[in-house]
Amino acid sequence: MGERLVVIGADAAGMTAASQVRRRNRDFEVIAYEMGNHASYAACGEPYYVAGIIDPIDKLIARTPEQFARAGVELHLRHEVTAIDLDRRVVEVRDADGETTLETGFDHLLVSTGARAFVPPMPGRGLEGVHTLRTLGDAAALRAIADAGAGNAVIVGGGYIGLEVAEAFHIKGWNVTIAEGLPAVLARTLDGDLGVQVAEAVREMGITVLTGAMVEQIEGTDKVTGVSINGETIQADVVVLSIGSRPVVELAVDAGIPLGETGGIAVDDHQRTGIEGVWSAGDCAEVQNRVTGVPMNLHLGTVANKTGRVAGVNITGGDLAFPGSLGTAITRVHDLEIATTGLRSSDAAAAGLDVVDATVSGGTIAHYMPGSEKFTIRVTAETGTGRLIGAQIVGGRGSAKRIDVFATAIWDRMSAGTLEWVDLAYAPPFAPVWDLIAIAARKAAVAAGG
Amino acid sequence: MGERLVVIGADAAGMTAASQVRRRNRDFEVIAYEMGNHASYAACGEPYYVAGIIDPIDKLIARTPEQFARAGVELHLRHEVTAIDLDRRVVEVRDADGETTLETGFDHLLVSTGARAFVPPMPGRGLEGVHTLRTLGDAAALRAIADAGAGNAVIVGGGYIGLEVAEAFHIKGWNVTIAEGLPAVLARTLDGDLGVQVAEAVREMGITVLTGAMVEQIEGTDKVTGVSINGETIQADVVVLSIGSRPVVELAVDAGIPLGETGGIAVDDHQRTGIEGVWSAGDCAEVQNRVTGVPMNLHLGTVANKTGRVAGVNITGGDLAFPGSLGTAITRVHDLEIATTGLRSSDAAAAGLDVVDATVSGGTIAHYMPGSEKFTIRVTAETGTGRLIGAQIVGGRGSAKRIDVFATAIWDRMSAGTLEWVDLAYAPPFAPVWDLIAIAARKAAVAAGG
Repeated sequence: MGERLVVIGADAAGMTAASQVRRRNRDFEVIAYEMGNHASYAACGEPYYVAGIIDPIDKLIARTPEQFARAGVELHLRHEVTAIDLDRRVVEVRDADGETTLETGFDHLLVSTGARAFVPPMPGRGLEGVHTLRTLGDAAALRAIADAGAGNAVIVGGGYIGLEVAEAFHIKGWNVTIAEGLPAVLARTLDGDLGVQVAEAVREMGITVLTGAMVEQIEGTDKVTGVSINGETIQADVVVLSIGSRPVVELAVDAGIPLGETGGIAVDDHQRTGIEGVWSAGDCAEVQNRVTGVPMNLHLGTVANKTGRVAGVNITGGDLAFPGSLGTAITRVHDLEIATTGLRSSDAAAAGLDVVDATVSGGTIAHYMPGSEKFTIRVTAETGTGRLIGAQIVGGRGSAKRIDVFATAIWDRMSAGTLEWVDLAYAPPFAPVWDLIAIAARKAAVAAGG
Repeated sequence: MGERLVVIGADAAGMTAASQVRRRNRDFEVIAYEMGNHASYAACGEPYYVAGIIDPIDKLIARTPEQFARAGVELHLRHEVTAIDLDRRVVEVRDADGETTLETGFDHLLVSTGARAFVPPMPGRGLEGVHTLRTLGDAAALRAIADAGAGNAVIVGGGYIGLEVAEAFHIKGWNVTIAEGLPAVLARTLDGDLGVQVAEAVREMGITVLTGAMVEQIEGTDKVTGVSINGETIQADVVVLSIGSRPVVELAVDAGIPLGETGGIAVDDHQRTGIEGVWSAGDCAEVQNRVTGVPMNLHLGTVANKTGRVAGVNITGGDLAFPGSLGTAITRVHDLEIATTGLRSSDAAAAGLDVVDATVSGGTIAHYMPGSEKFTIRVTAETGTGRLIGAQIVGGRGSAKRIDVFATAIWDRMSAGTLEWVDLAYAPPFAPVWDLIAIAARKAAVAAGG
């Protein structure tokens, strides 16, 4: 037998790394411990399961333990790693079923403990009917509630998951209120005025959207009955807290694995923690912002998969660098699509960059074709050079995936003035002759004076 | 009054240049002559008008003569320029209505005479019921026929326009046959095996697709009755010849304006013909291939608009270079989408490049979501460097516009190995966690050994 890799946390990053290691080197022994009931599931699909768009829930499981076994990965579900001993190079594992504790030695250790939903220390947070949405178990519980009969749902937090869960309960016939503490929804990734467009679209669906909504407490005795917001009580039969997520780093901290400034595990671009043979990937680890070089702690499925792959390659002696992330994100609320990549002007200014914005609106396809949808692109570019820094898209069907062109251009440090001329595809059912991407780039190039 | 620009041919390139000139310099006098009945129309939308998807035909007119007049462009329809005298710097113009001839002097001349449908010297080509589709008049005539009652339509040529016209008649209830002389449809831009996929999809619609179909003659006495193909007669009430288009260059040739090797007017990247004050843009002019640097004669609306803009800027003393074209093209046949950009491996080999292909298939969105459509990406990359050279996409709804990511990457000479890691947008309704773009890029990077 060759070296042994122990993986802590068997979701996207961990299992991508595990599979990669086995694919590259059959001599590696790979053991993965997962404290939950499932490994390798598509968390991003959960809101669509709650909504009934996906059925059954098994569809969200990318690979079963049997499939991993066939690939030579020894996966233990309901096994919690309770301690890492870096001196003795062993992990202590508690088997939730057997209620036994065992020790497993490792040559390489991958900390891929992921993130958990953030639950602020709010009165009433422990009441029945108060949920978060992160694990498959969370999704199953929310779906059961959504199916059991419509009532009042309060979604605390108007980020991506908050909006998606709100729509899920709306689809299920519930009366839904989104309570966002910031002045706009999606405020962490989208400019405020674009967030207003999103909130309006959500309201048009019949969902109540409260912004600047400070949740004081969740009310009820055993079961939730309401949420107290800005001094008023909103009735609630279910409350979903979607206020963001936090990296799960307690094990790492206890073991002496260093964190970075963001609170995630500090890693280099090879997913090394700085401790020989100890690696980290996925939501618990920091990633470098491709534009600024500054570490971030993103919780995105794409990043988890990619950093897991990088870790797997390097654990087996490869030399692969994770080239950073633009934080590209996309979602849909009813017919409205939303996408972002790179930095907004406010983020860029905070990072010390001198930038300008250009905002344009137009149609997704030729204006004379049926089905042309209006959308808006905002491009952020560096003053002087015109270098593309970020982009935001809000609009109708067929608009948001255009963000990938901006992600590609930003990735390569392309200027707005160059993007303007790129030979983008045109035919009436797909775009106007000047795709809005080019018009936005042109406006940004002029504004940047590059 | 300042200098005078005379524009010959008032479609996309000519009128973009005319408008640009007036926008940049109000002292310019701009006179445009158009031999046809319309200026500045969306030729690419014509098949959708024939199909009845667009109505009325006026929707295809981007700007009216009155709008041009308000912008300070003096537009004369039904005025044919019959000669250019470069020594005296005048054009000779025949007014089709007045049957008069006049002379107009110019300081600057823009030759934007466009292209015409290619009609081979085939017996029967002059019969009633034999059409091409290029002008608005062509579209109106075909729509009238399509509406008059279903019969048998034979479309000669299985390129983009051929497929689009075939679908239009099919939608109108006609019995449609496509006769393509080459072994596959879309053979000029798509690899043969992908063309087979397209042909199969077209056949599934109920359209007959004949490949390797040599049209010997069009039969009939006054009106067309059939088409003789490979020795057999296919009944036809209407025949549409869509065998490609040729640049309209007779005026230029007669005047001594040099052509390039492709048969289009030779221009530099500023749209200069080499003769002082004489410019050319649009379908009649050559453009440089962005990858190879070799001149091409493309007839694409995007190129016409862009080269018209470049001409307009430079005519008014600006300094703007047209950075070339990738020949990016896209279309849809029923639910099948098709797109290409850059060079196929066969084109690349002909250009002396050493390349490899990578082909992958997958879903447009997360596999567990309803509405995921299968599609195929083929990436062509340079051996050794992995530099992206071209891409082809064939597949279901939502697939083909991904070509823009490849166009952007190829534009910037990105390698497949770089594209693999670009932070593309992921959410279940929009893409799998590894977008097929990234999977294709990875496979190409491995194949290229870069």
